Amino acid sequence: MPSTIHLLGAGPVGCLAAILLRQRGFETVIFERRSDSRKAGAYGGRSINLALSDRGFTALEAAGLADEIRQVGLPMPGRLVHDLQGSVQFQPYGQGGQAIYSVSRSGLNYKLMDLAEQNGVQIHFDARCVDVDHQARTMILEKGQGRETLAFDVLLGTDGAFSALRYALQKTDRFEYSQSYLPHGYKELHIPPTASGDFAMDPNGLHIWPRGQFMMIALPNPDRSFTCTLFYPFEADPARGVALGLNEIQNDDLVLQVWNQYFGDTLPLMPTLLDDFHNNPNASLITVRCSPWNLGNTCLLGDAAHAIVPFYGQGLNAGFEDVRMLIAQVDENAITPQSSAEAWAETLQHFGSKRKPDGDAVAQLALDNFVEMRDKVADPRFVFQKKLEARLHQAYPDRWVPLYSQVTFQPQTPYHIAYQNGQEQQKFMNRILDLIPVDKINDEAWIDDLLRQEIQHFV
Amino acid sequence: MPSTIHLLGAGPVGCLAAILLRQRGFETVIFERRSDSRKAGAYGGRSINLALSDRGFTALEAAGLADEIRQVGLPMPGRLVHDLQGSVQFQPYGQGGQAIYSVSRSGLNYKLMDLAEQNGVQIHFDARCVDVDHQARTMILEKGQGRETLAFDVLLGTDGAFSALRYALQKTDRFEYSQSYLPHGYKELHIPPTASGDFAMDPNGLHIWPRGQFMMIALPNPDRSFTCTLFYPFEADPARGVALGLNEIQNDDLVLQVWNQYFGDTLPLMPTLLDDFHNNPNASLITVRCSPWNLGNTCLLGDAAHAIVPFYGQGLNAGFEDVRMLIAQVDENAITPQSSAEAWAETLQHFGSKRKPDGDAVAQLALDNFVEMRDKVADPRFVFQKKLEARLHQAYPDRWVPLYSQVTFQPQTPYHIAYQNGQEQQKFMNRILDLIPVDKINDEAWIDDLLRQEIQHFV
Repeated sequence: MPSTIHLLGAGPVGCLAAILLRQRGFETVIFERRSDSRKAGAYGGRSINLALSDRGFTALEAAGLADEIRQVGLPMPGRLVHDLQGSVQFQPYGQGGQAIYSVSRSGLNYKLMDLAEQNGVQIHFDARCVDVDHQARTMILEKGQGRETLAFDVLLGTDGAFSALRYALQKTDRFEYSQSYLPHGYKELHIPPTASGDFAMDPNGLHIWPRGQFMMIALPNPDRSFTCTLFYPFEADPARGVALGLNEIQNDDLVLQVWNQYFGDTLPLMPTLLDDFHNNPNASLITVRCSPWNLGNTCLLGDAAHAIVPFYGQGLNAGFEDVRMLIAQVDENAITPQSSAEAWAETLQHFGSKRKPDGDAVAQLALDNFVEMRDKVADPRFVFQKKLEARLHQAYPDRWVPLYSQVTFQPQTPYHIAYQNGQEQQKFMNRILDLIPVDKINDEAWIDDLLRQEIQHFV
Repeated sequence: MPSTIHLLGAGPVGCLAAILLRQRGFETVIFERRSDSRKAGAYGGRSINLALSDRGFTALEAAGLADEIRQVGLPMPGRLVHDLQGSVQFQPYGQGGQAIYSVSRSGLNYKLMDLAEQNGVQIHFDARCVDVDHQARTMILEKGQGRETLAFDVLLGTDGAFSALRYALQKTDRFEYSQSYLPHGYKELHIPPTASGDFAMDPNGLHIWPRGQFMMIALPNPDRSFTCTLFYPFEADPARGVALGLNEIQNDDLVLQVWNQYFGDTLPLMPTLLDDFHNNPNASLITVRCSPWNLGNTCLLGDAAHAIVPFYGQGLNAGFEDVRMLIAQVDENAITPQSSAEAWAETLQHFGSKRKPDGDAVAQLALDNFVEMRDKVADPRFVFQKKLEARLHQAYPDRWVPLYSQVTFQPQTPYHIAYQNGQEQQKFMNRILDLIPVDKINDEAWIDDLLRQEIQHFV
């Protein structure tokens, strides 16, 4: 009878899963390969933030943490799109008070680790899993110089994009696996508060500098700084206006040349640009797909199952939602510390097979959204389409919820359904846009009439 | 100066590469994780065979082995297609004496290991590589209970579909990787010689029992037996006529039921069918794609770089051709035991980037050919198309070489070019087939006239 659940990785997903299982009476033990970042001050003064939205909050609610996190997060109700001339256009993400939240990754993780330990979850740091035998239900743990073999009843892999459990599963028969990198890298940069201690830009949104093949974004931090991220091709592509690859922008002159040309309005706001640019690494962007997520009494959750690119702001939301859905399956199957290993295997199998299409969908949505963010948000046709969609949403809220809203604000819609809906919506919008002649673009009555007729055909 | 080349895996590809490098003055050391199969009699009495064709022979010629292997191989000039009624139709692979050869895998490997050692290649058996650090140029070897770290200058991964070098490269930044399995498994079966010591079927061809969603094939062995392979879906698919999955065919009655229904003509020829069926495993069929094949002074070759399904008979041919092309690059770059590590890195980079598209192409060709073998060879339209193509090839040998011939008999055409040509040819043939009315199907003069007109438009 598996009364103890082992987890790999004390990141936000692992902690949340452990807390919710602990609340159901299970002993929960997490092995984390890193040191305790709460003690080490590993994140230092700099904030690394992420976007949290309704799917993430819905899952956090189960641990009673949603309100607390929402209160320290900074709401971003829309995009703030910077053009080359430095003027900024606001594009709302949703309606009314709908917003995504800029949240400190480390702060969120600390809170979840603290809450986990308060609930009686054991977290062992500096304990790296190097192999798992899913049939024997043993894993090999490396602690310092030593190795030990440890038996488990149930093992959850919440150990991120480079999951040790997944590497082990990869070597089992008929395991489908792919890892793929974008041709773009990213680099983190910094906009500090102003001399008077204020935000240097409007904090009420996610700033984007869309430049076609590349872009920069900036998210506000509670300390009134912004964390900026430049997404830029590793390799030069002169035919597409990328004269130098990210790895080739190596001296101050070249950095300033790029900034003057593309991000001029941020230059006065980034006093440490050159140092940041040279000191911070060029990191890569991986997408991982695999199947099955579960094997025997082991299961992957979060990035371990579906590492995705960050462009939909759904990475952690998807991971938290995995946890919510696993726990829902645990409850549905009436799994308790007295349940059999077989009942657990079946529960993990139900979860894994049901959830996998959502992992595929959110991975694809994230890839698609990169093109939207770096290119389309600056395209008048796209902006016009977004306005039409908002109009449709307002007039026909039951028939039309924009894809972004389905993904971000509508946790009751599984990702894979949202993705399918989005495909249908785009076909519909392409037709509508073709039906609107140039001289009617500002004729709201004419357009409303058209939408009223056409929406009838949209199922 | 890398005067020693290390290789992982003493299979045919590793041995051939080691021999050719040894002939160029390099010390060559192979680590093989298995025991010496020549001593262990690992392959026992049963033959496991593979198809060798012109690409493989061209590479073997460099080691002076082509004629010897061709002489012990059994030529298969075409397919022998068995229908449900037991009648057999011959479909030639090429023209005149063109044939692929059924060759014993173990016999070929023994010969190559012997020749390698005669040439001074060191082969260390029971030495398993468990990790590689391509930057430090070290690998960890496991021998019995012990582990040791070993430095290398150049490391070639010829260690097959589950390559240790590739697993190590997979964890390096921006390494593209995918492994994917067919929904079909395979099981090896046996047709012994007749009581009088003869072949139980015509040995002059590759026997196929195409049954739509599944098939059996049989290749002749020098001992006058046949090795049969059943390719069958793991899971039932009643909508497509697959009542039971391979894993569900578990008792004698079910085996006989399948055989009576689909492979009736072989029942009298397979006295050990039931034993073989129960004793031999249901094996799976992997396709591996990765990039880059080379990193620093390491490089993947053969199945390690591009494990493919067996349906084009190109697996080992592609691996041998990798070796031929690597050696061509070594010679072109004038690499000698006095060359620098950097010159080697550059050579491996040239080879890897140039050869990768061919690995992708042959993987796709092999997947496509499964549908051809199990389904299309029994389709009258397909058979008619093959006849038209043979006609075109004969009348316009410079303008039309069938795809199969380009892949199998034309090593001077890279796989990726053959693949592109094949795509164009299929479009052309689709149009031709649509242009031929039913009443002209047997009107050779009319058809020749049509082909003469149309081939002018085919570039």
